[in-house]
Amino acid sequence: MAASDREFYVGVDLGGTKILAGVFDAQLNLLATAKLSTKADRGVEAVVDRIARCVGDAVDECDLALKQVRGVGVGAPGAVDTASGRVIFAPNLPGWKDVPLKKELEERLDLPVFVGNDCNVCTLGTFDREYRCKPRHLVGIFIGTGIGGGLVINGELYEGHNLTAGEIGHMVIEVNGPKCGCGNRGCLEALASRTAIFRRIQNAVKDGQKTLLTDMLGDNLKDMRSGDLRKAIRKGDKFVQQVVEEAAEYAGIGVANLINILNPQIVVVGGGVIEALENEFMPTLIKTAKDHVMPGTMNGIEIEASKLGDHAGITGAAVLARRHVS
Amino acid sequence: MAASDREFYVGVDLGGTKILAGVFDAQLNLLATAKLSTKADRGVEAVVDRIARCVGDAVDECDLALKQVRGVGVGAPGAVDTASGRVIFAPNLPGWKDVPLKKELEERLDLPVFVGNDCNVCTLGTFDREYRCKPRHLVGIFIGTGIGGGLVINGELYEGHNLTAGEIGHMVIEVNGPKCGCGNRGCLEALASRTAIFRRIQNAVKDGQKTLLTDMLGDNLKDMRSGDLRKAIRKGDKFVQQVVEEAAEYAGIGVANLINILNPQIVVVGGGVIEALENEFMPTLIKTAKDHVMPGTMNGIEIEASKLGDHAGITGAAVLARRHVS
Repeated sequence: MAASDREFYVGVDLGGTKILAGVFDAQLNLLATAKLSTKADRGVEAVVDRIARCVGDAVDECDLALKQVRGVGVGAPGAVDTASGRVIFAPNLPGWKDVPLKKELEERLDLPVFVGNDCNVCTLGTFDREYRCKPRHLVGIFIGTGIGGGLVINGELYEGHNLTAGEIGHMVIEVNGPKCGCGNRGCLEALASRTAIFRRIQNAVKDGQKTLLTDMLGDNLKDMRSGDLRKAIRKGDKFVQQVVEEAAEYAGIGVANLINILNPQIVVVGGGVIEALENEFMPTLIKTAKDHVMPGTMNGIEIEASKLGDHAGITGAAVLARRHVS
Repeated sequence: MAASDREFYVGVDLGGTKILAGVFDAQLNLLATAKLSTKADRGVEAVVDRIARCVGDAVDECDLALKQVRGVGVGAPGAVDTASGRVIFAPNLPGWKDVPLKKELEERLDLPVFVGNDCNVCTLGTFDREYRCKPRHLVGIFIGTGIGGGLVINGELYEGHNLTAGEIGHMVIEVNGPKCGCGNRGCLEALASRTAIFRRIQNAVKDGQKTLLTDMLGDNLKDMRSGDLRKAIRKGDKFVQQVVEEAAEYAGIGVANLINILNPQIVVVGGGVIEALENEFMPTLIKTAKDHVMPGTMNGIEIEASKLGDHAGITGAAVLARRHVS
């Protein structure tokens, strides 16, 4: 067994509701995963403990010991000082203000830990694993409960002056549009995220709209998931199809804005909505983006769905760890 | 006289209607300018001849000869292949497709010539002369007849995959907004440029709106200029003030989008509208931008008016030339 075959990395995707950890070999093949709910309401210390436990669970899952791991990467949902590994703030994790996550996890795991913003980490994962670091400039957009993004410029993750670059979801594209969680109106997130899609469906159903979704899930559409929309559309539900296409149009306008501003070689689109609804979402997104870019701007630029799906976060976090320790 | 005191650079701002050339000393102090109308309808060759003539006029104006000039920079209104100095296309210059401007001008002037996109060149000028190259990341926005921009990332001009990065004016911020010259709706340029402001005023006057502008310029508002708006506002014209503030609000939302996406240290705003209406425009722009950025994103970030005014183009072009030859 060559030395490199004995190298392992753990990538952690820290979310507002769940923690996902994955163990990767030196070639970044995924060996095993473990999942815990975040329990953010139990406070910062408890969440850090749970991250450490989840890492341990994943390592144990593939019959390894922590000391065989060379490094742990973490994607955290907020602004991260990547040099110190501190989470500056995380809007979906109550109490997370200036948390020294790297230090806390290193104490618990006795391993080198590296922390990045979740969407930056996902972007790094797609850039490194799906595109083999070839594009000089790449934009990642992740459409799920919210919409986030990351920028690779000149082959490197770009973080900006306050390390908050890539807040693509809060680009306003409809000045008097629907209210967003951030307090503004007409943000991309308020128009094209899963939350926006679900809200539009729920409001229409309240107003008497007929849809297969109520047959499938009951009138209150409890526990609706992106996959349910796919099923309804494939059964011929034109209403759901129209709502999804409308979201995809808004997303396409957001992508066009990014291409006009940044002119990256690749725009890669991922996240739960794309994983569940790629065929329903991407053609409209791409067509709308092409209709809205300036002439000449789009030559040779590709807009593609990420294949990493739900594993983008752990993959990117493992890439982060491997880049730092190797 | 030290050697460097005998170094001179010429910066050229090539616009759709006028050519402005400026002669600068080694410290990039402006010594003299010359201006010619572009006469774009006479064709590519004629315009190139006129650029060369304008450079000669400016040099003669300060009692120098062309052979004393070390380099000439040109900002051109379109996509430019900066390596070869070719103008790939220029929407406001009929017939300009793949024009080898560097080569053509070098033949006419017998001097090294360097060509860049006009808004990139203006951004380079503010970055180098106003900010002394200190910010790592800077966005320039120029609001005039249209709206353009340029990006400095990691201390270097960022041009993107197709060299068209910075098309800030065609960021859609109001999906069903007014029609833009590019064919889309609700672009920043269609909401916040001088053209957009004038259109709104002219339409309102047609609908019976009273304004001091008609007293000043006649009912058809012929030859209206940004300076006329400033005069009307200072005389108490609330209608004109409101139209300008509305444009400034849209511009502020555009700036917030850029801060959310790129998180630069400096956003510098220039162009004819700002030169004429800085006091009327900037406070609203800055307030609106601050209201629309994500929490934490704005810390230590400055939004400022450029002091270079109409000289941003020639100054940036001279910077471009000096960077290449020294």
